This record gives sequence, structure tokens and C-alpha cells, in this order.
Amino acid sequence: MSRAYTAAELAESEGLELRGDGDTPIRRVAPLDRAEADAIAFLALASHRHHLATTRAGAVILTAEMAEACPTTALVSPNPHATYARIAQLLHPRAHPPAGIHPSAVVGEGCRLGAGVSIGANAVLGDDCVLGADVVIGAGSVLGNRVTVGDDSRLVASVTLCDDTVVGRRALLQPGAVIGGDGFGFASDDGHWLRIPQIGRVVLGDDVEVGANTTIDRGAIDDTVIGNGVKLDNLIMIGHNVCIGENTAMAACVGIAGSVTIGARCTFGGGAIINGHIEIVDDVHVTGNSMIVAGIDKPGLYSSGMPLMGNREWRKNMARLKKLDELARRVTELERDAEK
Amino acid sequence: MSRAYTAAELAESEGLELRGDGDTPIRRVAPLDRAEADAIAFLALASHRHHLATTRAGAVILTAEMAEACPTTALVSPNPHATYARIAQLLHPRAHPPAGIHPSAVVGEGCRLGAGVSIGANAVLGDDCVLGADVVIGAGSVLGNRVTVGDDSRLVASVTLCDDTVVGRRALLQPGAVIGGDGFGFASDDGHWLRIPQIGRVVLGDDVEVGANTTIDRGAIDDTVIGNGVKLDNLIMIGHNVCIGENTAMAACVGIAGSVTIGARCTFGGGAIINGHIEIVDDVHVTGNSMIVAGIDKPGLYSSGMPLMGNREWRKNMARLKKLDELARRVTELERDAEK
Amino acid sequence: MSRAYTAAELAESEGLELRGDGDTPIRRVAPLDRAEADAIAFLALASHRHHLATTRAGAVILTAEMAEACPTTALVSPNPHATYARIAQLLHPRAHPPAGIHPSAVVGEGCRLGAGVSIGANAVLGDDCVLGADVVIGAGSVLGNRVTVGDDSRLVASVTLCDDTVVGRRALLQPGAVIGGDGFGFASDDGHWLRIPQIGRVVLGDDVEVGANTTIDRGAIDDTVIGNGVKLDNLIMIGHNVCIGENTAMAACVGIAGSVTIGARCTFGGGAIINGHIEIVDDVHVTGNSMIVAGIDKPGLYSSGMPLMGNREWRKNMARLKKLDELARRVTELERDAEK
Repeated sequence: MSRAYTAAELAESEGLELRGDGDTPIRRVAPLDRAEADAIAFLALASHRHHLATTRAGAVILTAEMAEACPTTALVSPNPHATYARIAQLLHPRAHPPAGIHPSAVVGEGCRLGAGVSIGANAVLGDDCVLGADVVIGAGSVLGNRVTVGDDSRLVASVTLCDDTVVGRRALLQPGAVIGGDGFGFASDDGHWLRIPQIGRVVLGDDVEVGANTTIDRGAIDDTVIGNGVKLDNLIMIGHNVCIGENTAMAACVGIAGSVTIGARCTFGGGAIINGHIEIVDDVHVTGNSMIVAGIDKPGLYSSGMPLMGNREWRKNMARLKKLDELARRVTELERDAEK
Repeated sequence: MSRAYTAAELAESEGLELRGDGDTPIRRVAPLDRAEADAIAFLALASHRHHLATTRAGAVILTAEMAEACPTTALVSPNPHATYARIAQLLHPRAHPPAGIHPSAVVGEGCRLGAGVSIGANAVLGDDCVLGADVVIGAGSVLGNRVTVGDDSRLVASVTLCDDTVVGRRALLQPGAVIGGDGFGFASDDGHWLRIPQIGRVVLGDDVEVGANTTIDRGAIDDTVIGNGVKLDNLIMIGHNVCIGENTAMAACVGIAGSVTIGARCTFGGGAIINGHIEIVDDVHVTGNSMIVAGIDKPGLYSSGMPLMGNREWRKNMARLKKLDELARRVTELERDAEK
Repeated sequence: MSRAYTAAELAESEGLELRGDGDTPIRRVAPLDRAEADAIAFLALASHRHHLATTRAGAVILTAEMAEACPTTALVSPNPHATYARIAQLLHPRAHPPAGIHPSAVVGEGCRLGAGVSIGANAVLGDDCVLGADVVIGAGSVLGNRVTVGDDSRLVASVTLCDDTVVGRRALLQPGAVIGGDGFGFASDDGHWLRIPQIGRVVLGDDVEVGANTTIDRGAIDDTVIGNGVKLDNLIMIGHNVCIGENTAMAACVGIAGSVTIGARCTFGGGAIINGHIEIVDDVHVTGNSMIVAGIDKPGLYSSGMPLMGNREWRKNMARLKKLDELARRVTELERDAEK
């Protein structure tokens, strides 16, 4: 945690109207219902409005509409959640490790390191890597040859970037992420599989985040491309030659087969599985656990996946589901008979 | 493998009745139908009872009821499977690597290491870590700053524990596990995503096991908490601020979104996907591949997921499923007509 | 990329008929519709035939039937995709890192290393490992004790092989793969879980590929066995004592519980979940996201998983699905009434 700010300083930093005591010292963020006097909280949902009356927060970020009812210092924002995120970043900055190369790290030949770069213990860089200013390569990370990482990007620890991977600026890559492994490309030859060399790269735009143990495969010939501002949670699989548009976000355990093109500003719930070689347009939202086997050409909210049932009901319903086509035919038959 | 025990020694160590030759030397565990004379096997299911007649095992662990039919040395136990587990641990103890810090390991400032601690090759500890007695940090593991690991815990190899993670006693963490990565928390700001700092920790209780490449994210503000005795298989995702009760077990590939609260003694089959912000009570059991979108307030056995079909039938049935609501309306219509 | 070959050299290396200019220099592979004059492309699908007319490729691999229409140099092959794979391997060989042990690597006692072995920076080998000729152990990989790796196998980087793991020849293991972690085996003892020691190994045959962050657990007593030529994509979970037959291939995010036996030449789509203790015969093909809860005793194409719908329709249909058994009874009732 860094130093305290006054409520007035925080309001000013965000260009927001302040109501109440601007001298209130704020040291941390906290939830509205459990915040102490040195904390700032936010209120975004009308359904949480009742917490206002009893909050002990030093300050609250909320909309003008709700600010009337705020018993403490208020920061009035049109988007309290976004304001909260920015103020939380200010109050809880991520520590930048000291610049320099840890003596146990290995840096290959021909690497170019920007000012302020920090390379952690037992990290490895291959040859001809290029790291921008203030890049942090966390302990135990491995970079292949000719890897490029843009300014202000951070590999938390134990990240692997294979040869020729390109990471943009301000990336945040969590431990265990593997970027640039070979795509899953084989030709069938008389019952055997022949590997097809994967000679494309992975290219991540700016402001991309990649979760723990997520994997992004390099392209077969062309590159796998992750757009600016894309956020990927943990244990996601991105196949070769996938292209993801700007600011699309995916929850954990999503799997995307090869050569899928996904638009901008999409969201995917956890565990969604996406077939290869399809296209999904901008502004598509898919709920968790969905199976996507065909392209989606209209924005909107889509779902699949079966809701939970008691095991006994489920067994009965599934026995019927396996004969649903027959059931539908029987209904058609009944309708025909009724019309006679 | 360690030394041989006699059947009598094993019975005594477990406080069990022995029937037959107590001097039989036992060196290993083996399945009932393939055990040799130096092995001990167990019989728990009546359906496997027929293997008794032909077993060549030196000794068999089984219930009093089944012991009558045992042709060889018998250890009579009310819970043969549990007895088997304990005797297997005795016969096949995990080797403890020599205490000490491998010369290639890196240990930060201010770390406190208990007696018997072993730190493997190329492992990294940040600053101010605290390791209890006999902790094993396997090769290539990375611990951030201020990580705490309780007595007798073992990181097999290549495990990553991020800053401030707390691991209890007797934990077993398989390779590739990542504990304490940032939770997936963003605020939407005019089409962009703003990161919300994740300032909570992960706290694992005692006797927790975490499978290979499983990820557990740190909390947003409060901690992510894994109760005593929880067992997690491989490639599981535990989101930020999840709380899991004691002795709950999860098979591989389970994904749990943020802020889920799960009770004690639950079991989850492989591939289950759990939506965020829900509560599941104690003693809930969910079969594999289930989708859980709402809280569960009664103990019991629950399921979802579609049974496999021939591809042709599946296509037909799915075409009908997409119009199931219409089909149900047609049935209601028929019923109405019939009543006229 | 390596040197250029002439089209004639490529045809000869594959024993194929060449039509057109054999002197055309070829330096790379490329897609038919975007290839330049120094590239070779392939045409396998009749539906892509129209690209032939406009291709600028220096040479095209295609069947005799399609070769008639080829405006440029043609390599006539009965299996253009397989020929393409072999020629791509020739044109884009994987660089073999220099033989030797990087000074930062740690090699235990009693290890035997074949000719041409390369051990990368900060890699760790335990004691008594055996590496065949030309094995590449990529940077940051960790091998336990008594690990065996066959000739010409490559661990790209950050791979973990636990004690006693056996890897065959010509394996390709992507970063983050964990092979030989403990199986998920516990006995229930009065509400607690007791670990059952996992004393089997993992044995990989020849020509096996394992994707990034895939995990294969060691057997409980017997070994987990992966047959020759098996190809596993990323983030796959293979439970203890699974046996997979030769040349079976699995797309990403497949999860297989313990003691499953799978035949040869099977394929599994991404995200398939397979219950424990079942048997699947040879030549079974399962589409993505399927749930397999029972054995499969006939070759064929199988499916489950629910197609995507608009969220509104999905909600309506799912409400009906939860009462499908009742709906079917109502239809039966109507049929009975109609027969009266």
C-alpha cells in the first residue's frame, strides 16, 4: 500500500465533484458494508443502496442520483465502478521490482533491454529478445529467441513465451501462461499423424491480460492475433490462427479451436467451447459453459448448457431426451389424427 | 519402497484383528487379482469377492463379513479402503529429499526456514517467506514475497505461489499449480476494461492437496479460502474470493467463478462449471460435467450434462431441443382440444 | 528457414510425379490463395479448387485428378495433405540447439546423456536420468529422478517430468506439460480423505506429442500408458491408469478420469469429458464438448452437448427440458385417450 490521499485529492485526480469533507484521509478500498473510516467504497447497484445508511466508509463513489442519500463524503461519478478501479490502482499500486538483471537469470546474446527493465531470479531469455522500458520478467519465466515485450509489460512469474512471440505494451501475464507453443496441426497419413510445422507467431496487442496457465498457440502459417485490451482469465486455450478483436473478455476454462475469428467487445462465460474455423461478430455475449459449433453473425446474448437437476429427475429427463425426435414425431401424429 | 513388514506388524500398527499367518512378510500393495505373495491387497466391494478364491496376495484387508471366505492371511477392518490407504503409506513412503538449500536456489532476504527444510535446484523464494519444519520446495518452484508454508508441506516441483500466499501444514502441491495469481476483476469504462487491483490473498488450510496446473486466484479485497482437508485434482480453476469448506473434493477440470461459497464434505465430478456469486451448502454431490448456475440449498446428488448419442440421433434430437418450448405448447394445445 | 529446394528435389524426396518446371526454387510453404512464387501450397479439398486458377504459388501439391487444372508446377500425390506436412518439415526444420549442458542447468548424479543432448538454461535433472541421443531439454524444464527420455525427443521449455517417467523417442512436449504428477486417489475415512500413494509411472510411447499445460498423472499401482503416435493438445487431463491406444488424437481441454481404456485411432473433440473406469474401443470418434459416462463398444461417430441458442429461447427450452419426462408422459396419455 502506498501513502494516504485525501478525498479531495482523489476527486481531483479523477476530475469528479466532491461532496462533504475533502480532508478525509483515504488509505485503501473496501466493500461498502465493511469499510472502515480510512477506506473508500463504491456503490453501483441500486440494490445495494441500503448499505449507504450504515456504511462507515470514509468516502463513497456513487452516481449523482444516489449521492443525495450518502451520509459520508461522496465522490460523484457517472461510472462508479470505473472510478473505483482507477482509485484502487492509485491506492494499491503494484510494486515495481528494482531494475536490473538478477545474477541467477540467464540472458542470451543480442538482447536489447529498455530502461528500468527488471529480470527476476532464474528467469531465462533466449537470443535477440527485445524488452521495452520498465518491463518486468518475473522469476522463473522463460523467453525463447526473438521474443518482443512492449513497455510496461509484466510477466508475474513462471511465464513461458516461445520463440518469436510478440507482446504489446502494458500486458499483464499471470504465472504458468504459455504463449507461442506449437499449434495442433497434423496430417493423417495411413493411420499415422504427421506434424505440420507451425511457423506463425503469437502477437498480443497492448493492454492484454492473460490468466494463470492459459495457453495461446502460435499460428500454422499466419499469426495468432490477440487484439488490444483483450482480457483472458485462467486455463483458457486459444488455438492456432485464432484472431480476437479489441476489448473482448473471456472467463476461465474457455477453449477455442483453431482459425476462429472473434469480434470486438465480446464476452464469453467460463467453460465455453468454440469449434474451429468459425466467425463470431462484434458484441456477441455468450453465457458460461456454452458450446459454439457455428458462426454467429448477429450481436446479442446466446446460451447453451443444461441447468442442474436432482440426479433422479435428470436421469429420467435424459432417457427422454435421447428419444426426443421420436416424441416430436408422436406429437405430430397426434395432431394429424386430431385434424381428421 | 521401504523395508518389509510382517502382516502382524501391519495389523498392529492399525489396531486390527489378524487372522492367519502373522509372519507373512509384506513389501508392497497390489490389486487383489494380481498381487504376489509379498503384497497386501484389499477387498471393499462385494462384487469383487470372487477374486478372493484365486488371490495369491500374502494378505488381504477386508471386513469381518467377507473375512470368512479369505484363503490367506486376513486383516479385518471396518473400512478396508481406508486401512489400505494407511498401510500403503507405510509401505510406500514418499522419500524426503535431504534438508538444505540447493546451491542453485535463490532465497530472498528475511526468509525464515524451519528445521529439515529442503529447497530444490533452481527454486526461488522472494523476501520474507516463512517455511515450517520439513517443508519441501521442489525444483523450479517460485515463491513470491511474504509466502508462508506450514510444517510438512511439499511443493513437488515447478509450483508457483504468488506474494502473500498462505499454505497450511501437510499440503501437497503438484507441479504447475499456481496459487495467488490475480483474480479476474475489471470495470467496464466506455468499451475498455480497467483492472481492479486484487489485494486479497489465498489461504489454504491444513492437509490441502492441489493438482497439477490447477490455479487458485487471490481475492479482490478479502481472501480466497480453501478449508482444511480440501482435495483438488488437476487443471481446476478457483476464482477470486471463493470459499471452500472442509474436506470437499473436486475432480479435474472443474471451474469455479468468483465469490462462490461451497460447504464442507461436497464432491464435484470432473468438468463441472460453477457460476459466480452463489452458495452451495454442505454435503452436496454433483456429477461430472454439470453446469451450476444457481445456489444449492439442500444436500443431495445433482446432475446435468447430456449423455452421448450416435451423431445422427444427436443431430435429430438437438433440432427438436431447439424447439422444445414449441413442442410443449403443442402438447398443451392437444390436451385442451381433447378436453373439449 | 533452411535453404531453397527445387520443385524437382521436393518431388524426388517424396517419390512423386512432377509436372511442369522442376527448376522452380521453393523456400517456404503457404496457403494456396496467398502463396508467392517461392512457396509451395497444397490442394486437398475439391471445394478449394477454384483457388487454382489464380494461385501465384511456385508449385502445388495435389491429386492426379486435380492436377489437370493446375496452372503452375504440380507435385502429384495421392495424399496432398500428408505430402505437404513432410515437405513443410523439410523446408521449415526445427532448429536443434547446440549440444551441451548450459552452465546454469543442474544435472543430478548418475545421469546418462546420449550424444548430441542439449540441456537448456536453468533446466534441472534429478538423479539417474537417462536421455537418448539428440534429446533437447528446453530451458526451465524439471526432470525428477530416474526419468528416461528416448532419442530425438524434445521438451520445448518449462516441462515437468516427475520421478520415474518414461518418454519414448521423437516425443514433442510443449511448455507447461506436467507428466507423472500424483493421481487423484483417496480413501474416505470418517469424513476425511486419506491419500493413497501413487506408485505407478507414466509411460509414453514413441512419437507422442503433449500440448501446453496438459497433465498426465502417474498410475496408482500400474502405469498410465500413452501409446505410440498419440497426439494430445493443450490443457488436457489424463487421469491415473488411463491407457490410450496408438495414434489416437485429442483436441484441447479434454478431461479423462482414472482407469479409462481408449482404443487406437480414436479422435476426441475439444472439451470432451470422460468418466472413469470405462472402455472405449478402436476407431471411435467423439465430437467436441461431449460427455462420455459409459463405455463405447462400437466404432463410429458420437456426440453430445447442446447447440447454442438465443438466451431467451434457451431459457424457455430449458424450463421445458427440466420437465421433459412429464411432457413425455402427457404425450403417452394423449395417445391412450386417442385410442379409446
